[in-house]
Amino acid sequence: MYRIVLLRHGESTWNTENRFTGWADIELTAKGVDEARAAGRLLRRAGCAFDLAFTSVLKRANKTLNLVLEELDALWLPVEHSWRLNERSYGALQGQSKAETAARFGEEQVHAWRRSYDATPPALAEGDERLTMNDPRYASLPRAQFPRAESLKDTVVRLVPYWETVIVPQILAGRRVMIVAHGNSLRALVKHLDRRADEDVAGLEIPMAQPLVYELDANLRPIKSYALADDDLVHAGQAGAAAPGRIGS
Amino acid sequence: MYRIVLLRHGESTWNTENRFTGWADIELTAKGVDEARAAGRLLRRAGCAFDLAFTSVLKRANKTLNLVLEELDALWLPVEHSWRLNERSYGALQGQSKAETAARFGEEQVHAWRRSYDATPPALAEGDERLTMNDPRYASLPRAQFPRAESLKDTVVRLVPYWETVIVPQILAGRRVMIVAHGNSLRALVKHLDRRADEDVAGLEIPMAQPLVYELDANLRPIKSYALADDDLVHAGQAGAAAPGRIGS
Repeated sequence: MYRIVLLRHGESTWNTENRFTGWADIELTAKGVDEARAAGRLLRRAGCAFDLAFTSVLKRANKTLNLVLEELDALWLPVEHSWRLNERSYGALQGQSKAETAARFGEEQVHAWRRSYDATPPALAEGDERLTMNDPRYASLPRAQFPRAESLKDTVVRLVPYWETVIVPQILAGRRVMIVAHGNSLRALVKHLDRRADEDVAGLEIPMAQPLVYELDANLRPIKSYALADDDLVHAGQAGAAAPGRIGS
Repeated sequence: MYRIVLLRHGESTWNTENRFTGWADIELTAKGVDEARAAGRLLRRAGCAFDLAFTSVLKRANKTLNLVLEELDALWLPVEHSWRLNERSYGALQGQSKAETAARFGEEQVHAWRRSYDATPPALAEGDERLTMNDPRYASLPRAQFPRAESLKDTVVRLVPYWETVIVPQILAGRRVMIVAHGNSLRALVKHLDRRADEDVAGLEIPMAQPLVYELDANLRPIKSYALADDDLVHAGQAGAAAPGRIGS
């Protein structure tokens, strides 16, 4: 049996402003910093230890991970960064407020972009400064492959190869892995892990800064998944612990 | 021509208490945090960018690096941790105040332990809780090799193989490297880089949280080394910039 922990970053400034973020590299708020530290302390109280962490190349996830590692007294832990764990690109919606976008395109369209499996938001135009392909952190990403906008499906397609070829071998080698990423990149991973049908992702929500534990069998099929909560530590296995079973819906 | 940056961590709580630290894993003070951030801002103003960073497995260096990376907007940067970049082990002196140690062993002996090349402080005894060989961060270090106390020479002997086999290939591949470590592990590296004679290390001091720039030729022989200062940015190449030439004495 293997156990991995998934963690979405804490609150960012655009979360509070209710703007689409995607690949925009937005800071944590002071509350987000506190949330990240609280997640780290929760993991410490639960006795969770790790051998290796994976994260995106976006600072809200990187900072969340560093704060968690500080609370775990494990700043020495090896960390792998990859754009393949980045948030889904929201394309031309990045930076726009969700209210304005709904006023312009309609609630139904915005809901489809946010929650359906294969709806792709409007693409970034060539020359748009939000196409940050010259940023050195994307040096390993061929320019033609730099996303102009992604559906959740596109996110699954670019994330799963990294999961399969980089993360899975480490898990099978017995390393205890934490993945600190984003709402939609973690939705993509959870869809893959849980073998959810494409039409079964709308209700799938990943809570911010709450460690999600996945217990996996020898074939990496989930045995159990749950959001870690202090209840679990005290009443492990009892009714009332946070939603053991399947994450998020 | 290659350019690397060496950085000693900011002030730690045992620096303020004037205690021997070595492999004890001591936090930065609030001042140390500020110093680390200031070093990061200085590097940013100087236009320094990096592809890769190396650091120890001790939190005062790891935290300093993370703060520098935050100021450089480069939390995504790949980082390699190794115990081979750790501070010199001060053995049984770890945790002792420098004043008490001088009262007990004499100023001359303490000076020899601190500044000579091959004087080794008293060793940690088997069973001493300061022998943290069960800490998972030292899983790759054979127990028999875990240092009981190190001279500067011992530090050179365990650091140089890492420099030669891990760091040098990255520099030769054109990657811009930063090394964030400790007073004596950086003395060891500087001695090696500068081909200093064994008897020529006593005056070699590495200042805290001040970026040291080494410009190296194709054979990695230093062309120039200097502590980065704001003067360098404004008056680059002019007299008055901080000590271009050889670091530290």
